[in-house]
Amino acid sequence: MEGVDYLADERSKAEFDVDAMKIVWAGSKESFDLVDRMSKLVASDPVFRKDNRTMLDRKALFKCTLEKSAYAFKLVNELNLTYEEATKLRFFIDEPTFTDLHWGMFVPAIKGQGTEEQQEKWLPLAQKMQIIGCYAQTELGHGSNIQGLETTATFDSKTDEFVIHSPTLTSSKWWPGGLGKVSTHAVVYARLITEGQDHGVHGFIVQLRSLEDHLPLPGITVGDIGTKFGNGGYNTMDNGVLRFNHVRIPRNQMLMRVMQVSREGKCTYSDVPRQLIYGTMVYVRQTIVSDASIALSRAVTIATRYSCVRRQFGSQNGGPETQVIDYKTQQNRLFPLLASAYAFRFVAEWLKWLYGDVTARLNANDFSMLQEAHACTAGLKSLTTTATADAIEECRKLCGGHGYLCSSGLPELFAMYVPACTYEGDNMVLLLQVARFLVKTVSQLGSGKKPVGTTSYMGRAEHLLQYRSNVERAEDWLDLGAILEAFEARAFKMVVSCAQSLRNFPTPEEGFAELSADLAEVAIAHCQLIVVSKFIDKLKQEIPGKGVKQQLVFLCDIYALSLLHKHQGEFLATCTITAEQASLANTQLRNLYSQVRPNAVALVDSFNYTDHYLGSVLGRYDGNVYPKLYETAWKDPLNDSVVTDGYVEYIKPLLKGKLHLSRL
Amino acid sequence: MEGVDYLADERSKAEFDVDAMKIVWAGSKESFDLVDRMSKLVASDPVFRKDNRTMLDRKALFKCTLEKSAYAFKLVNELNLTYEEATKLRFFIDEPTFTDLHWGMFVPAIKGQGTEEQQEKWLPLAQKMQIIGCYAQTELGHGSNIQGLETTATFDSKTDEFVIHSPTLTSSKWWPGGLGKVSTHAVVYARLITEGQDHGVHGFIVQLRSLEDHLPLPGITVGDIGTKFGNGGYNTMDNGVLRFNHVRIPRNQMLMRVMQVSREGKCTYSDVPRQLIYGTMVYVRQTIVSDASIALSRAVTIATRYSCVRRQFGSQNGGPETQVIDYKTQQNRLFPLLASAYAFRFVAEWLKWLYGDVTARLNANDFSMLQEAHACTAGLKSLTTTATADAIEECRKLCGGHGYLCSSGLPELFAMYVPACTYEGDNMVLLLQVARFLVKTVSQLGSGKKPVGTTSYMGRAEHLLQYRSNVERAEDWLDLGAILEAFEARAFKMVVSCAQSLRNFPTPEEGFAELSADLAEVAIAHCQLIVVSKFIDKLKQEIPGKGVKQQLVFLCDIYALSLLHKHQGEFLATCTITAEQASLANTQLRNLYSQVRPNAVALVDSFNYTDHYLGSVLGRYDGNVYPKLYETAWKDPLNDSVVTDGYVEYIKPLLKGKLHLSRL
Repeated sequence: MEGVDYLADERSKAEFDVDAMKIVWAGSKESFDLVDRMSKLVASDPVFRKDNRTMLDRKALFKCTLEKSAYAFKLVNELNLTYEEATKLRFFIDEPTFTDLHWGMFVPAIKGQGTEEQQEKWLPLAQKMQIIGCYAQTELGHGSNIQGLETTATFDSKTDEFVIHSPTLTSSKWWPGGLGKVSTHAVVYARLITEGQDHGVHGFIVQLRSLEDHLPLPGITVGDIGTKFGNGGYNTMDNGVLRFNHVRIPRNQMLMRVMQVSREGKCTYSDVPRQLIYGTMVYVRQTIVSDASIALSRAVTIATRYSCVRRQFGSQNGGPETQVIDYKTQQNRLFPLLASAYAFRFVAEWLKWLYGDVTARLNANDFSMLQEAHACTAGLKSLTTTATADAIEECRKLCGGHGYLCSSGLPELFAMYVPACTYEGDNMVLLLQVARFLVKTVSQLGSGKKPVGTTSYMGRAEHLLQYRSNVERAEDWLDLGAILEAFEARAFKMVVSCAQSLRNFPTPEEGFAELSADLAEVAIAHCQLIVVSKFIDKLKQEIPGKGVKQQLVFLCDIYALSLLHKHQGEFLATCTITAEQASLANTQLRNLYSQVRPNAVALVDSFNYTDHYLGSVLGRYDGNVYPKLYETAWKDPLNDSVVTDGYVEYIKPLLKGKLHLSRL
Repeated sequence: MEGVDYLADERSKAEFDVDAMKIVWAGSKESFDLVDRMSKLVASDPVFRKDNRTMLDRKALFKCTLEKSAYAFKLVNELNLTYEEATKLRFFIDEPTFTDLHWGMFVPAIKGQGTEEQQEKWLPLAQKMQIIGCYAQTELGHGSNIQGLETTATFDSKTDEFVIHSPTLTSSKWWPGGLGKVSTHAVVYARLITEGQDHGVHGFIVQLRSLEDHLPLPGITVGDIGTKFGNGGYNTMDNGVLRFNHVRIPRNQMLMRVMQVSREGKCTYSDVPRQLIYGTMVYVRQTIVSDASIALSRAVTIATRYSCVRRQFGSQNGGPETQVIDYKTQQNRLFPLLASAYAFRFVAEWLKWLYGDVTARLNANDFSMLQEAHACTAGLKSLTTTATADAIEECRKLCGGHGYLCSSGLPELFAMYVPACTYEGDNMVLLLQVARFLVKTVSQLGSGKKPVGTTSYMGRAEHLLQYRSNVERAEDWLDLGAILEAFEARAFKMVVSCAQSLRNFPTPEEGFAELSADLAEVAIAHCQLIVVSKFIDKLKQEIPGKGVKQQLVFLCDIYALSLLHKHQGEFLATCTITAEQASLANTQLRNLYSQVRPNAVALVDSFNYTDHYLGSVLGRYDGNVYPKLYETAWKDPLNDSVVTDGYVEYIKPLLKGKLHLSRL
């Protein structure tokens, strides 16, 4: 029945103040209000409906998203929304589109890499969307290795122009979002060639399409790279291919904040520190970690609510079957993901602080924390996106067969999310960067260099190397201090052990290549420690609201102990804990699941997602799943007619045994 | 360039006889010939093209598959193909469709559960496809728990009919393939009610649609349940919803081989052993394991070939960059999957033998091995499908960004494959069944009951409980006997430990519920042991062909040692190996990767897949990836016009700043 809350029973079990938890999740009352307002604005506007998204073909889907983008821009202007409001509005539309790149990459690139003059010229045009821009970096043959890009920008001093050219097929720009069908301009990354010399990769503003009729300009070949994973997914985005045939642009369209090319073709560096680029990286990766917590919490919301609705087995005397959330196997798969959602949220919050700190230091020409901040954000990006992609799929499986239907929302969420494991740094490449930094940090301990930031625990080298957990009973694992030290000891012992193994190789590079799989594990151990420690730090802050803190303590425990179980081998091999202690951790984990069980629905309600944003019949707030699944089925295009298209041509001749007469 | 083999260099490195390996993979020369012929037949026929599959909308896609199904049936008749040939032909068409259920479930259900009379009546109709059938078991509210089905079949002795009825919304049949838009008949599972008594769930043949105009018969509501994961994927299948409003069928349409209902409504069991159902289960699951090895090997073929084509970083003096397959991190992720493909293939081969053995025993009324065979197939189904689903996604990630394009073939393969984790027994439910059996087996050891089949190692209880590996050097891990014992000891110690923990609970059921997560791990350990031991058994057979056996030994080692590393915690916690031995296993694993590296492309060539079947630009046999990716992109519907649909309505007004005037 409409209007009935089928999960009311579940909600009544909550032992904490859900409204207070909503504020904790949002970060602040202001942030909560903003998010709440914008998500409801989107949810209430029929233009933004997305329930039909998986049934549209690519062209219809794409056009539909174009409409939403234009409409959103109109709303922003009409309602006079602030920058933050506009950003959230676009976020809750929940469809990747060209404006993501325009606002998220094109504008920041000009701001970060353009001179003041350039900013004055281009930013107003971009801000009014009189031009639409994208970020054309990766090429068909070149992804992770930016220094290997092939596109050239050759300076022609005769005409004071750069000639942008794609010398090979593999140099075709490939993947940039917004490029395929929409953008009028791009920041193009190309090798700067002046006077026959290669000066490495720089950014250039290049117009791609006519502002009159939207046709590609001469020398430009541009299009969409094709359909991607999922029905809707990223197919609302025109990821593009772009080739240049000697396209000329004025010299002042090279972004020259860091390096200038003179009228004569001479290159000079400005005094703007080149390290600025790291600030942007920290910023972008902080956003990615925050997005991970959101994607993960969406999936967990769906799986948690549906696990309360779904019943299977265990009926006694003809009574109802058992809610699947009451099975320990379900809890053991689901609750660590619920805990991870919170853990990632708090580490993202901390990264936001870190970005501010890094920026302030950069402005003060203090680069001392830069390497550490860079490694830490790289590692956290890798850790959280891999975990989230896996978790979404696990949540889908936790919904049984029905999770496979698009109406569950989970297939789309997965397909839309997984690229995060690859873009902005392939997750494996990033882990190896972290590992390199960790090995270096350890190797400098002897020389007295003090490890900073998230590596500062390495300063207690002797203590950690000798550390053995003194947990004796299951309850001892509730001590967050004991958990933290176990994670520190495990990570540190692993780094040290790897650093020692590296010495057995003729050269460090050979060792690194050979041991890279072990090194990646070391990096993961370190990053898990960061997440655990930031969760614990969060718990040291004042957290208002009845029972809120208690729930977070449970979740922090669950996050840490479930990792401890999963990576038991590393804790045991490093003699950080004993087999007996590992087993006690497992016992404690089961107890914690029982604590969280009655609060599960309230803990996902705290994310405050609208049904529109969730986009899932299984995850509906009111739990009215089956009637809505049934209702939704009939909207599929295949049900447009009772007798299927193709019956006459392909089924009837079969049934009538007249197939041999028919022309197929 | 067309016709050039860009992977020729890789192929020339092979140290074994690829043609001989193809026979090993196929199982026999006959099997190879059959598969080779049928796959090439499909690949060469333009009707079976599938490169456009992800670009079609649901209706067009569905119709296209109907055409292929009809055309395939026509071919089978025209070419007078055998049953095996027809099955393989359909297999290589590589699109789920109603005939899968017709031949794979409907016909076998009548054969297995119908009386001779019923078989005589219905089988000829089905075999000529004068009727098309599906298998209507699961309901909206009931998946795993078959005994909880709600649909009723009430015997009306007045008319000698059953009244088939859906009493609730949740009793709607939901998911059956072929039901939604195609089938004329179904085997419907419903609760048999006679004289007011519920006799449990039985099968009934029910006509759903008119054989004249294909309209649903009176009292029948039927349709498609909606779009599923992936662009093409399972969307070629009409998984359906079905409701009955007091639909009457003659009494003789209940499948009565095992139980009969008389004219008076009396139920009697025949002397056909009810255990027959287990035979079918073993058969179906054997097929699923075989399919797992095929799906996995497809993904591995794509990732392996593309990893040889793709180069990234490591350019020296302007030379080419390093092939990504040469990175140890890539090898460490890819080669264990390559090894798993072979491991699953051989365990599937053994399961085929097991099915024959079980059938022979059933026919001789010997049920002694049934439980063990049932547990073992359940566990292997769970293990191999979970591993394969994860592996396909891992292979996609191993292809970097380009793996996200549908033209890579991997998104479709994943979307199409993942339901295997849920259908025919949810993987978690199955693991718990295995665990129950293992605990029972252990508990009976004391009473002198000899464990049989795959559990016979438990007969060496004392030896295994005391077992500690005596590996001293990395090379010692090449000893397959040492590996096997370590896997046996780990599994057995885990079962025993769990069995002991269970005793601490007031009742076994409580213990089972509480420890279910641990029990699932125990089941996995046991099943991994089975796979390892069957691989080792295979190596004891004569394997002709230069170097073939050597490669398989490497792969067997890699399979086992990579699992040993992944589950290090269990091997350590059970004191089966020491941390030092675990580390030696890792060292040996790296050595093995170097052995396999030059053979990698040849090892995937041995699967003998056509480019048509692979359906992947990245996995092309000739390695000519980039030009074909580029070419394929332009075929996307978004590229139909240079200026995109929607430009006039949604982009132009933006650029011209006239959005406020436009109606959106």
